[in-house]
Amino acid sequence: MKIIVGNIENETLEAENLTSHLGEKIKIHGSIYKIRKMSGFAFILLRTKRKVVQCIYSREYSLFELEDLAEESCVTVTAQVIPEERSKTGFELQLLDMEILSKPVQQIPIVINNKRVDTSLENLLNFRPVTLRNERERAIFLLQEGITLGIREFLKQEKFTEIHSPKIVHAGAEGGANIFRFDYFGKEAYLAQSPQFYKQMMVGVYERVFEIAPVFRAEKHDTSRHLNEYTSVDFEMGYIRSFEDIMEMETGMLRHVMEVLESGYEEERKILNAKLPYIKEIPAIKFLEAKELISKKYNRPIADYDDFEPEEEKLLSQLIKKETGSDFVFVTHYPSRKRPFYAMDSEENQEETESFDLLFKGLEITTGGQRIHSYEEQLNKMRSRGMNTDLFESYLMMHKYGMPPHGGLGLGLERFTGRLLDQDNVRLSSLFPRDLNRVTP
Amino acid sequence: MKIIVGNIENETLEAENLTSHLGEKIKIHGSIYKIRKMSGFAFILLRTKRKVVQCIYSREYSLFELEDLAEESCVTVTAQVIPEERSKTGFELQLLDMEILSKPVQQIPIVINNKRVDTSLENLLNFRPVTLRNERERAIFLLQEGITLGIREFLKQEKFTEIHSPKIVHAGAEGGANIFRFDYFGKEAYLAQSPQFYKQMMVGVYERVFEIAPVFRAEKHDTSRHLNEYTSVDFEMGYIRSFEDIMEMETGMLRHVMEVLESGYEEERKILNAKLPYIKEIPAIKFLEAKELISKKYNRPIADYDDFEPEEEKLLSQLIKKETGSDFVFVTHYPSRKRPFYAMDSEENQEETESFDLLFKGLEITTGGQRIHSYEEQLNKMRSRGMNTDLFESYLMMHKYGMPPHGGLGLGLERFTGRLLDQDNVRLSSLFPRDLNRVTP
Repeated sequence: MKIIVGNIENETLEAENLTSHLGEKIKIHGSIYKIRKMSGFAFILLRTKRKVVQCIYSREYSLFELEDLAEESCVTVTAQVIPEERSKTGFELQLLDMEILSKPVQQIPIVINNKRVDTSLENLLNFRPVTLRNERERAIFLLQEGITLGIREFLKQEKFTEIHSPKIVHAGAEGGANIFRFDYFGKEAYLAQSPQFYKQMMVGVYERVFEIAPVFRAEKHDTSRHLNEYTSVDFEMGYIRSFEDIMEMETGMLRHVMEVLESGYEEERKILNAKLPYIKEIPAIKFLEAKELISKKYNRPIADYDDFEPEEEKLLSQLIKKETGSDFVFVTHYPSRKRPFYAMDSEENQEETESFDLLFKGLEITTGGQRIHSYEEQLNKMRSRGMNTDLFESYLMMHKYGMPPHGGLGLGLERFTGRLLDQDNVRLSSLFPRDLNRVTP
Repeated sequence: MKIIVGNIENETLEAENLTSHLGEKIKIHGSIYKIRKMSGFAFILLRTKRKVVQCIYSREYSLFELEDLAEESCVTVTAQVIPEERSKTGFELQLLDMEILSKPVQQIPIVINNKRVDTSLENLLNFRPVTLRNERERAIFLLQEGITLGIREFLKQEKFTEIHSPKIVHAGAEGGANIFRFDYFGKEAYLAQSPQFYKQMMVGVYERVFEIAPVFRAEKHDTSRHLNEYTSVDFEMGYIRSFEDIMEMETGMLRHVMEVLESGYEEERKILNAKLPYIKEIPAIKFLEAKELISKKYNRPIADYDDFEPEEEKLLSQLIKKETGSDFVFVTHYPSRKRPFYAMDSEENQEETESFDLLFKGLEITTGGQRIHSYEEQLNKMRSRGMNTDLFESYLMMHKYGMPPHGGLGLGLERFTGRLLDQDNVRLSSLFPRDLNRVTP
């Protein structure tokens, strides 16, 4: 019998800690990211967990042959940490010795160790397991990790409980045809379009809940904005006074996210040239007013009174940016007929809902609103839409047995990341995007 | 236009903060959990986000009629905070006034406001949206939240990067028939049985990664141990010296989880009568040795040399507990033919793998091990199993272009929670469990 004591020490150091070992002989492991041969010596970039470290090979002190090294080899090196002002880390590593742990079988057919991976989107995604090794590509998802970190920190502080709701469901929350179906032991089941029903139920349990998890949309849109699977940040809160409480909470949350990205993630922001928006406040405009404003300012006839065209979202964001300086804008009071059956209609105007979207630099990244909490009201709305309420028995159970006024939102993590980095395609902020034509890698 | 400033202040207080308001008149909101009428007064339990607070209704000072109150009504109360030694919180609330925000349409047909919900498992799950409102039920998932909190804290500290991998996949990681299939825009796609392929790919990117997300198993087992959808805690790490590094990491992680649950979550532990195991070290025994030991000690013939019977897992845990005091035991070196194609075989014995399971009080809660990182070795193993390597082109890409020695594990969150609480059915630690017969609520 062996005894495992939980010893997680390593003889190798972390790149982040090297500055406290200046002048010392150390060991560190990583992948050979790039070899740049000069005369008599070579620059070697070592890719570690989160940082790329500059090393120097020289025949003067290196006890191995440069020819034995290949890019993407995994190695443990013994090196001297030398102060070096010209290096952005403040030091460089003089390579003394090298243990090769593994070698690639062949060279990657795409150059991944330049500033950017210079290839088509198609290639970038086809070769995802290796193009993600590019310093810029991996910075995107470190920043994305920072976003979820900030969200979790904030929501925990605001006493939201994290939940895990099922993705295999018996009814779709968003309705319509955009749902994946499959055979579940002889019954038909679906992939959850959102955790909507479950997060509402859990408001009856913990008052405030959140979940960061995959959702699935069988939308046949092949655009730069749509993914068929994405990571949804959902929160739902009880005892709200109006749906504005949700917008206030989101504004606080986004502000905190920016603070987290601002105080950490400096290197990633630099690599990505990311300019974080400063969120002092976010303007909110009614849907109809926004439609009319865009129509007037840009001299566009209104083609559709029910929804925005993508172009209108862009124009509205431009306008708001110009007038208020804000990259974000809430659009409120969407038409009732375009919102789901659980959306609460406005008291003043039953054609409108107590709902909102959040646009960020021209793209909708959040949909939210107040939900119906009264059993009778919910039944009536479902009936008026010709829905079979029997199918929603377990959903309606919470209304029947008592629910507080409540509401919440869903934020698309990839869209948010993408807008933050001014990317022109949401696929770029998904590690392994799923679209109409892509289920690989 | 409105301006949203991110104001998340409330006029109501949190139950946790009331002790600093002794003697004051305050407002607080929540659900009426229980009404216990006495003569001339009544005890009223108010269910808030995470705590149940004791309130007193009395005709002397309460400015409303007790008859207006119903259990599961949502209310905002005005109350006086009175020191009260007999209350476990150290205070009670004298109800002055009450605003009713919503009322249930009818009484819940199951009693949910006793210590335990005294009903069948079937009923408990059928009425999940309301049975979860029970103080004991909701404590289970607060503790579960504490588990993931501890895991995240630990893995972040150990420089693991959190990732989001796709659940819609083109090939199954675990192989076999236990996979859900569905039509993905005319192509066949599957629900991920694990993030295995993706977390391995991401080791090539960040060296250490983790994910806490749903996985899907189309297993036709109707047992107390199986769920068809569960929350998998997966981590994967590069530059390991052997698979023991992974067990060391898991031991450290579990120890940290216990520290988090020990320092917080006191009330939940009390409600659940949870005794946390102290993890000083965890013994590890080879699979074959374990089989023989059980056979000898309990005089059982070995029926199956490839796997444990559930009874054997229980007996082994009993034995280890008796001999070492540990509730956990690692079982290592599982037979190669029972492990997936990516498992690394042992150098000394090719029939065995560099792999392990972790048993906790008689139940397997983790499977892990070292993976093959050499391209040739991986190709050979797949071919020897008659697999079509063309289907795994994007998976094999990482091996081809260089991977460090690596390995990782998957831990079933519900099983772990269940064993921690000595529950006899894993469904009890899933908010909305999915099994052969259940896709609702």
